[in-house]
Amino acid sequence: MKQKIRMGMVGGGKKAFIGAVHRMAASLDGLIELSCGAFSSNAENAIESGKDLFLPDNRIYTSYAEMITAESKLPASERIHFVSIVTPNNLHFEPAMLALENGFHVLIDKPITLTLAEAKALKAKADETGLMICLTHTYSGYPMVKQAKKMVKDGAFGKIRKVVVEYPQGWLSLPADADNKQAAWRADPAKSGISGCMADVGTHAAHLAEYISGLQITKICADLNIVVENRLLDDDGNVLLKFDNGANGVLFASQIAAGEENAIKIYVYGEKGGLEWHQMEPNTLLVKWLDQPMQVYRTGNGYNSDIAKYNTRTPSGHPEGYLEAFANIYKNFAQTIAAKENGTTPSEEMLDFPGAAEGVRGMAFIENVVASSKSEQKWYDFTV
Amino acid sequence: MKQKIRMGMVGGGKKAFIGAVHRMAASLDGLIELSCGAFSSNAENAIESGKDLFLPDNRIYTSYAEMITAESKLPASERIHFVSIVTPNNLHFEPAMLALENGFHVLIDKPITLTLAEAKALKAKADETGLMICLTHTYSGYPMVKQAKKMVKDGAFGKIRKVVVEYPQGWLSLPADADNKQAAWRADPAKSGISGCMADVGTHAAHLAEYISGLQITKICADLNIVVENRLLDDDGNVLLKFDNGANGVLFASQIAAGEENAIKIYVYGEKGGLEWHQMEPNTLLVKWLDQPMQVYRTGNGYNSDIAKYNTRTPSGHPEGYLEAFANIYKNFAQTIAAKENGTTPSEEMLDFPGAAEGVRGMAFIENVVASSKSEQKWYDFTV
Amino acid sequence: MKQKIRMGMVGGGKKAFIGAVHRMAASLDGLIELSCGAFSSNAENAIESGKDLFLPDNRIYTSYAEMITAESKLPASERIHFVSIVTPNNLHFEPAMLALENGFHVLIDKPITLTLAEAKALKAKADETGLMICLTHTYSGYPMVKQAKKMVKDGAFGKIRKVVVEYPQGWLSLPADADNKQAAWRADPAKSGISGCMADVGTHAAHLAEYISGLQITKICADLNIVVENRLLDDDGNVLLKFDNGANGVLFASQIAAGEENAIKIYVYGEKGGLEWHQMEPNTLLVKWLDQPMQVYRTGNGYNSDIAKYNTRTPSGHPEGYLEAFANIYKNFAQTIAAKENGTTPSEEMLDFPGAAEGVRGMAFIENVVASSKSEQKWYDFTV
Amino acid sequence: MKQKIRMGMVGGGKKAFIGAVHRMAASLDGLIELSCGAFSSNAENAIESGKDLFLPDNRIYTSYAEMITAESKLPASERIHFVSIVTPNNLHFEPAMLALENGFHVLIDKPITLTLAEAKALKAKADETGLMICLTHTYSGYPMVKQAKKMVKDGAFGKIRKVVVEYPQGWLSLPADADNKQAAWRADPAKSGISGCMADVGTHAAHLAEYISGLQITKICADLNIVVENRLLDDDGNVLLKFDNGANGVLFASQIAAGEENAIKIYVYGEKGGLEWHQMEPNTLLVKWLDQPMQVYRTGNGYNSDIAKYNTRTPSGHPEGYLEAFANIYKNFAQTIAAKENGTTPSEEMLDFPGAAEGVRGMAFIENVVASSKSEQKWYDFTV
Repeated sequence: MKQKIRMGMVGGGKKAFIGAVHRMAASLDGLIELSCGAFSSNAENAIESGKDLFLPDNRIYTSYAEMITAESKLPASERIHFVSIVTPNNLHFEPAMLALENGFHVLIDKPITLTLAEAKALKAKADETGLMICLTHTYSGYPMVKQAKKMVKDGAFGKIRKVVVEYPQGWLSLPADADNKQAAWRADPAKSGISGCMADVGTHAAHLAEYISGLQITKICADLNIVVENRLLDDDGNVLLKFDNGANGVLFASQIAAGEENAIKIYVYGEKGGLEWHQMEPNTLLVKWLDQPMQVYRTGNGYNSDIAKYNTRTPSGHPEGYLEAFANIYKNFAQTIAAKENGTTPSEEMLDFPGAAEGVRGMAFIENVVASSKSEQKWYDFTV
Repeated sequence: MKQKIRMGMVGGGKKAFIGAVHRMAASLDGLIELSCGAFSSNAENAIESGKDLFLPDNRIYTSYAEMITAESKLPASERIHFVSIVTPNNLHFEPAMLALENGFHVLIDKPITLTLAEAKALKAKADETGLMICLTHTYSGYPMVKQAKKMVKDGAFGKIRKVVVEYPQGWLSLPADADNKQAAWRADPAKSGISGCMADVGTHAAHLAEYISGLQITKICADLNIVVENRLLDDDGNVLLKFDNGANGVLFASQIAAGEENAIKIYVYGEKGGLEWHQMEPNTLLVKWLDQPMQVYRTGNGYNSDIAKYNTRTPSGHPEGYLEAFANIYKNFAQTIAAKENGTTPSEEMLDFPGAAEGVRGMAFIENVVASSKSEQKWYDFTV
Repeated sequence: MKQKIRMGMVGGGKKAFIGAVHRMAASLDGLIELSCGAFSSNAENAIESGKDLFLPDNRIYTSYAEMITAESKLPASERIHFVSIVTPNNLHFEPAMLALENGFHVLIDKPITLTLAEAKALKAKADETGLMICLTHTYSGYPMVKQAKKMVKDGAFGKIRKVVVEYPQGWLSLPADADNKQAAWRADPAKSGISGCMADVGTHAAHLAEYISGLQITKICADLNIVVENRLLDDDGNVLLKFDNGANGVLFASQIAAGEENAIKIYVYGEKGGLEWHQMEPNTLLVKWLDQPMQVYRTGNGYNSDIAKYNTRTPSGHPEGYLEAFANIYKNFAQTIAAKENGTTPSEEMLDFPGAAEGVRGMAFIENVVASSKSEQKWYDFTV
Repeated sequence: MKQKIRMGMVGGGKKAFIGAVHRMAASLDGLIELSCGAFSSNAENAIESGKDLFLPDNRIYTSYAEMITAESKLPASERIHFVSIVTPNNLHFEPAMLALENGFHVLIDKPITLTLAEAKALKAKADETGLMICLTHTYSGYPMVKQAKKMVKDGAFGKIRKVVVEYPQGWLSLPADADNKQAAWRADPAKSGISGCMADVGTHAAHLAEYISGLQITKICADLNIVVENRLLDDDGNVLLKFDNGANGVLFASQIAAGEENAIKIYVYGEKGGLEWHQMEPNTLLVKWLDQPMQVYRTGNGYNSDIAKYNTRTPSGHPEGYLEAFANIYKNFAQTIAAKENGTTPSEEMLDFPGAAEGVRGMAFIENVVASSKSEQKWYDFTV
C-alpha cells in the first residue's frame, strides 16, 4: 500500500482561521495526511481540536516540543514527514528550528520569522541538514501567476522596465477591528514584529513582484504610515522601488483602504508589452501588446505553459481559487518530499515553491522598508 | 476517536476527469474519507487507480457489484456510508439501485440516470428505504448562488417576472473534439441518452433557474440543434420558458459557442430589482435596483445571509472556486449523513443539497425539451 | 466659402429628449447646420424652441408642412438639404413623404413608420425620387460594431452558427413610469403602433444581429408579454430565430428587466470563434477563439479595420460613447449628401448608414413577431 | 435672434489632433460658434484649414496676433468672446496674454504654460482684467468624477486618508514613436518644457487627485525616469504624496507602460469607505463601504447628485465619453461667459471648470516633481 505524505501541525486550533485554510490546502489533492498536531498552547483546545480533526488520541499533542520529540521516535513508516507551522510570527522560529533539528521538513506561514536574523538562522540550518523549508506565499501558487512568470522569463515582453504591485485591504480601517483575534496579533509588535501591514501583506506584494518579474529589488524609498490612532505598527505604506536590471517600480500596501477586500494586483511592463493580474479574478491574466489587441489568458486552456497546467486542476471556465493556489504550494512541496523519499529527482515543477531563500528576502524587505521609512534620505539600499 | 464519513467510489479511474474532481471535493473539508472504490470496469485500471489513491488492497474492487456486496458485509464501524457514482449517464442507475438496496446512501453526478423512468425508480427506492440521494448540481453550491436564492425567497425583488439562464460552451465546436474521452461518451446516445447538450449542461441551467428563483418550469418551447455534422445528439439548444407563477424566461445552452469556456450565467428580474450571476466570476453577485445604484455582493462578507456564510471557507477577497462549490455539496451531504448517524436532526443548511427530486425534474427537463423540439406546437407542457 | 449641409428638424421641441440627442449628433463634426425647424405642433413651444436654438425668426416654423413648403421655395444655396424627423412613430410617415415629394432627403428615428405598409410606401418614394432615407439605428454606428461586422464578413470566424442578442431595460418596470412623456407615447398604440417593447428596442436588437452577422432572419418563434398590469402593448418578449444560412438564434428584449439601464449586447458564434459586444462598454469588442486566448479589440487602435477607424474620432483609451455612434450615422449621411451635391461618388464608408431597406425590415420584424406571438404554431416565416 | 458664444481658435490646423477634439467639444451643445481662427503659423495650412471649417475668408487669419487685433476691432455683436489656444505648450503664453490684453477670455490646453512664472503672470493678468481663463483638464469634466467629488465633499467617506492616482500610457514605448507629430513636440524641451510625461499626463493625474479629494498636495517624493534611450525628458515617473489634511498618496504616470491606452484611474479612501474610477470606463463609479456591498454608481441615473446630472446629456446606459467630458468644460465656460454677457450671475454648476488657479498649481506640480526627482532628500515641499 502506497503511503501519503504525513504532516504534523503546530497551531491552528479551533478558532484559528489560517489553520483550517492550511488543512484544506493540504488535503485537497489526497497526497497529504494530517497525522498529528499540537494545535494550541491551551491543552484543552489542543485536544478538542485534534479530536474534531479525527486524530487518534496518541497523535494529539499539547506542545510542539512534545510533538516533535514524540514523532521523531516513531518508526519511519509512521512518523510525520513535515511540520506545518501556522502560528503567529513570533512562534515560527522555535518550532521550525526544533523540527529541522529533529529531521523534519518544515512548512511555515509567511513572514518566515520575527526577525531577519532568525530567518537566516533557519535557512542556515536547512542548508546544513538538507531539509526543506516551504513558505506559503500563496499568491505565487496561482496558475496564471506561473503563466505570467513563464512569459516574462521567456522574453515575451522584452526587458522589464516597470513593476507596479498594489495590495489594498480595508479590514483594519477601524480601531474596533482590533478586537478580533486575527487583527489583534497583527497589531501587536511582540507577535508581529517591527511591522504590521508591510509584514502581513507587503511581503506578499514584494514576493509576487520578484517572482513574476524574475528581478530583485535593490533600492527602496518607503513611507510607512500609522493611520488609525493609537496603533503601534504601520497599517499602510507606499514604497518606490528600483530593481537589479534598472527597472523602476511602485509597491503599496494598506489595511486601511476602506472597502477593499484582498485586492492584491500587479502590473509588469516590458519593452514589447505588459501584463496585469488581479488576485480577486485569479483565473484571468491580461497580456498587453504594443500593436496588437490585448489577450486574455485564462486558467485551464491548452495554450498555457506547462508550468501553469501543472498547477491547474479543473478545465477552463471552472474557476480555481485561493485554496487551490494554496494547495499548489502544499502539493509541490509534498511531491518534492515524496520524490526524495523515493530516491527520485523532483521535477522543476515540483520544486517550484517558495522556500528559505524567499523567507530571508521577505524578512529583509520588512527590515529595509522600516529603516527606509525612518530615514530622511531618499534611496535606501535593499540589503539582506 | 471520532470517525470521518466513509465513501466508496464507482468509476473515476486514472484517466477520468470527473473522478478526480469528486475526490478533491470530498476531501477538501477533511470530513470524508475515500475508503474504497471500483474505479473502472477494467480490472487493471481499477487496481492501479486504487493503489495510486493510497487504498489498501482489500478495499480496491473491480466491479461496483463486488464493492457494494463486500462493503455491506463489513462491520458498521468500517463499511462505507455512501457510494459516489461518477460514471457516464448509462452507468448510474444500476449501481445506485444496488447501493440503495444494500443500505448505502448515494451520490451521483447529474443527470441522475439515462431515462426519466429510471430516475423515478431511484427516487421511489430512496423514499422507501429512507436513504438519501445527492445529485451534484455543482453550481447551486456556490455561496453567491445561495445568497441569490435567499434574497429572492425573502422577497427582496418582489414577485419574479423573468428568468434568463445561459450556458454557452465551445469545446464541441469541432468534430475532431469527439476524439477525446469526455466528448466521446457525451455524443453517444447509448451512454448519454436522448440528449447531448441539454442533458450535459442544459440540466444545470434549468436546475439553477429553479433553484434561485424558487419557481418551477411549467411550459417550454424548445429548439434543439445538431450543429456539427454527423453528430447524433443535440449540441445546442434554445428554449422559451413559462414558470408556475406566470414569469417568462429564456434558457439556452450550447457546446458549439466557439471560444466560450464554461460560461453559465443567470439573470433574474422581479418587480423591485434583479440579480445577475456569472459562474466564471462566482464570488460576485450583482444586485440591481429600480432607483438605487447596483450593489456588488461578494463572497465572504459579513453582510451576506447565514446560508451563504455556511457555504464559505475563506475571507472576502480570497476567491472560492468550482471545487469549493462542489465540496459544499459533498460537505452538506456528509454532514446530513453524520447527523443521522449520530441521531441528531440535520440543520436546514446541511439539508441544502440537490437530491432525488431534483434528479427527477432534471430527467423530465431532458425528455420534455426533446419532445418539444420535435413538436410543431409552440408551447409544450412540462410534465414529470 | 464652403457650406455645411443644412438640416431642418421636425419635432424635438423643448421637453423632448431625443431631439436634443439628434442635434448634438448632427453638430458634433461641424458638417451639419441646423437651419430651420418645426419643433412642435404647439406654436408657442415651436417658436420658443427655435429661439433657444439660435435660429432666425424666419426659419422657425410651426408645422412641418409649412416648413417643407417654405424651404422648398428658398434658393438652393439657402434651403435645407434634409429633414430630420424626431417625432413619435405615428408622426413619421406624413412629414417624411412630404419631404421626399418636395425634394428633400430624410432622416428618421426608428422604427421608420407606424406600419409596414407605410414603410414600403416611403421606400418606394425614395427609390422613385432618388432621394435618401437615413434611419438612426444608433448601435450600428459604434466603431466596434463596425469592426465586428467586418471581421464576420472577412470570414474570421468561419460560417456563423449562432447569434444571441439581448436588450434588457428596466425603466418601464412600474406602471407609474408611464407618467413620464417618453414612457407615455411608447405605451400608446395610437402613437407607437402594434408593439411597445419590440418596436422600441426589439427592432434595434434585430437590426444589430443582422448588421453584424450579415445574415437575415427567416423564421421566428415569438413570445411577447405584457408584464405590467393594464399596459396595452408588450413590455417584454423572447424570440427564437432562424437565419438564412441555417444559423439559429435567440433575441430577447425587455423594458421590465428591473435595474437594467440600456444593456443591449450581442454574441455571435462561428465555426472558428466568436465575438461579444456590450453597448454599455462600447469601445471593447471581445473576440474569442477555439485554441487561442480571447482578444480584446478596442476603439482607436491601429490594428482595427479601416471602417472602424473611419468612424472613430479619438485615440485609443479616450472613450467614445452613444453620441459619437449617433453622430457617425449623421456624419456618413451628410457626407453622402455632400458627395452627391458635389457630383462625386460617395465612398463605401460614407454609404454605411441604415436606410429605407432597413426601415422596411424593421417594420416587418414588428409585424412578424406580433403575429408569431399570437400564433400557436411554433415557427413563423419572417415575411416582408 | 439669440446669439451663440463666439470662439476664435489658435492652432489646430489640418493635421493637428487636438484641434479637432476642441472643435467637437465646443460644437456639441450648439452653444458655441467657431467664428474665426489662426490655425497654423503656416499661412497656406491656416487658410486651407479655415476653409475646410466653413469659415468666411475674412475670419481666417494667419497669425494669432493678427486674429486678436482684427477681432478686437469688430463690433461687439460680431467679435469673438474667447480665444481657444490648442498649440504646443511653448505657444500658450503669448497668445493667451495678448488675448487677455485685448479683452478676450481664454481657454487653453493644459499645462497652461511652459513655466510656473508664465502661469503666474497669466493668472495675474486675468485677475487684473476680470477675464477668465479655462483650462482643459478634461477628466474633471466626467459626470462620475463630479459625483465622486460631491460625495467626498459631503463627507460620505469621512476624512480622506489615502489617494492613489495612476496614469499609464504605452504610446511612447518605442523611440520610433517619436516620429509622429504628437510624440515629437512632447519630447522636445523647447516645446514641452522641463518635463515630458509629468507635464503631459502627470498634471492630469495631480489635478484629478486634488479635484476629487478636495485636498492639496503639500509634500512630494518624486522619481522621474527616462526609460527610452536618448530621450531628453522623463517618460515615466513615480511620486509619493502627502496632502494638507495628513492623508498620504501615490501618483504614477508613464508613457512607456507598453500596451496601456490611456488608463488614468483613481482610488480614494476615507474612514468609512472609498471610491474607484477608471477613465476608460468613465460612466461607472465604484463606491466601497466598510460593512455594506460595493455600490456601482452610473452616469445618467436619478440617484446621482445635481452636479453630476448637470454634466450629463444622455439617459443611463447610453454611454458618455471623452468628448462629452471635454464638452462639459467648454459648455460650463461658455455658459459662464453668456451669464456675464447677460448680466446674470453664473450658477455654481457653470463655474465648475478648471481655471488659472489650477493652471498655476499644475505648473507648480511640474516644477516641484522635477526638483524633487533631482534631490537626494526624501520629502520635498510642494511650493507654488
